[in-house]
Amino acid sequence: MECIFFRCTLPRKREEWQVESMAMGEFELIRNFFSSLGIGRDDVTLGVGDDCALLTVPQGKQLAVTMDSLVSGVHFQPDVDPAALGYKALAVNLSDLAAMGAEPAWFTLALTLPESDTQWLAEFSRGMGELAVCHGVALVGGDTTRGPLTITIQAQGFLPAGQALLRSGAHVGDLVYTTGTLGDAGLALCDQLSKTPEKPTFPELIRRLERPEPRVAAGRALREFASSAIDISDGLLADLGHILEASGVGADIHLDALPLSPPVRAAIKSAGDWSIPLASGDDYELCFTLPPGMATRLDEISKSLQLSMTRIGEIGLEPGLRCWLDRDTLWKPQDSGYLHFYADD
Amino acid sequence: MECIFFRCTLPRKREEWQVESMAMGEFELIRNFFSSLGIGRDDVTLGVGDDCALLTVPQGKQLAVTMDSLVSGVHFQPDVDPAALGYKALAVNLSDLAAMGAEPAWFTLALTLPESDTQWLAEFSRGMGELAVCHGVALVGGDTTRGPLTITIQAQGFLPAGQALLRSGAHVGDLVYTTGTLGDAGLALCDQLSKTPEKPTFPELIRRLERPEPRVAAGRALREFASSAIDISDGLLADLGHILEASGVGADIHLDALPLSPPVRAAIKSAGDWSIPLASGDDYELCFTLPPGMATRLDEISKSLQLSMTRIGEIGLEPGLRCWLDRDTLWKPQDSGYLHFYADD
Repeated sequence: MECIFFRCTLPRKREEWQVESMAMGEFELIRNFFSSLGIGRDDVTLGVGDDCALLTVPQGKQLAVTMDSLVSGVHFQPDVDPAALGYKALAVNLSDLAAMGAEPAWFTLALTLPESDTQWLAEFSRGMGELAVCHGVALVGGDTTRGPLTITIQAQGFLPAGQALLRSGAHVGDLVYTTGTLGDAGLALCDQLSKTPEKPTFPELIRRLERPEPRVAAGRALREFASSAIDISDGLLADLGHILEASGVGADIHLDALPLSPPVRAAIKSAGDWSIPLASGDDYELCFTLPPGMATRLDEISKSLQLSMTRIGEIGLEPGLRCWLDRDTLWKPQDSGYLHFYADD
Repeated sequence: MECIFFRCTLPRKREEWQVESMAMGEFELIRNFFSSLGIGRDDVTLGVGDDCALLTVPQGKQLAVTMDSLVSGVHFQPDVDPAALGYKALAVNLSDLAAMGAEPAWFTLALTLPESDTQWLAEFSRGMGELAVCHGVALVGGDTTRGPLTITIQAQGFLPAGQALLRSGAHVGDLVYTTGTLGDAGLALCDQLSKTPEKPTFPELIRRLERPEPRVAAGRALREFASSAIDISDGLLADLGHILEASGVGADIHLDALPLSPPVRAAIKSAGDWSIPLASGDDYELCFTLPPGMATRLDEISKSLQLSMTRIGEIGLEPGLRCWLDRDTLWKPQDSGYLHFYADD
């Protein structure tokens, strides 16, 4: 759906009114700022500019489809760096594709803006384009509307048929792993919200919050080995909980095994609380389960991708998720992750 | 991206704290109200409930992809009937698929809600489901977030490769057609906004505004005949303008040929202005061009679909869009359709 602005002009040749179309409004917005994101791909027959995009899925491949919204005041502060916002809006969607082991291909963007701010749009599209180019993913369509700042992206990727990493594949005896480190983005957000300027946030933590790296290569590599996977967007407990629920199993997690950056380790020690790496969101690492006996092969993948993959626990028969402080002591959760809605009933 | 709520319970068997996952939040919202929209389709390997949906495009088919947002206070009044809103949010997307001649298959839904209102959600999903079932289109994923009421849908459909109806195919000498009647939704909206209770709006006009029928069957039938097509979402002038711009041609429209319902005809006579059928949006009819000599075949299609298809003008070499009141008099536009943004410069 695109808008166009009409103006009346007195044509040169004939003394009569004529309606001339002048591309403005949404169309011009998209064309001006997002044309560079429609990077060339042979599978895009038609991109932005018609009623639909026309795309071709390679033979034998399944389509993986995901959709995520970021809402101002809910997922980010209204004064957030627009380049970081553009980057992250795409990153959270590519992270979902990564969690299935899919190869990103295309995305569509619905952008609701309170005003048409060209500088903001230029920065937003630049940040988004940075990540799009990095993963060879093309913007193929979308919609821009006036309203409260909201970014919705639908991303699509390819998978060899039947090879998707599902949440439902964990088995009793599997080992639980996570990529990277946990809690960095959560700590950065805590720091930002506490607004204590005497305690500057480490730039590396801010980068982890604002520019998470979707683990696309890891997801693809894990397709052959992992029994289940999910991306950690709402905190390890919440997201591993999804795997347990979908797989009908339980898990034991060993807190001393969690991969933590020094600032997160210090924050846990200072607060005496493990909520940050367990229940804060925005990590965008992959949590996955691995049949035992695959650990050596996993080490090779980890080395070749230069991405740490850490064993943090095991899948068990007993339902629920238990986090062990040591061999005999269970952690008592104080936080419940980020919940958008509470059920009414 | 889904949220989950954790609570601590004292398990019966062992004296220790245990974290149990309880599906709530977004996941529960989606599951409760939208599960019926994930209607069975063989091409949906995995629907709502994992990081991505997994879908299969039939061999030899292209994928047509569109995305549209409806924002409260911009595209609809906040107190709109939620069932009508659910219906329309999907309808405007299916209309884009229809304009390409595509067969609707799947959609994803991003729903931003100020609060979790179960009655509202039940009605919204019922209205959406009504249309989804009618076209055999399945909800395969999405995201729900808290925030100002916004509905974004991405819809996907199939097309035989190379057979899409494009905006860019109109040629000099082609005839310009539209399905159905024009201006009904625009008149209903004018009536609603003028708030004159002594002048009740015809129920049929309200139905046209709230529950437009995406012309899916017409789009499919026209694939073999029409040279270009677009759905009329922003008014005939704006949308035919897109065809002219994309095709590099002009057009002459004869206002006395426009297909109009009696109330719209009366409104034009009363106001002495043609803006309603020309520049008001929300018609969701198809405007298309036809090579001359196809008119007889088109009559057969029109009859078999029980949908009027009216010749309203011709494509010409001279750029621009001219609307003729009679053989010698051009209409002077007073309205410019609905423009979301004005350019800053």
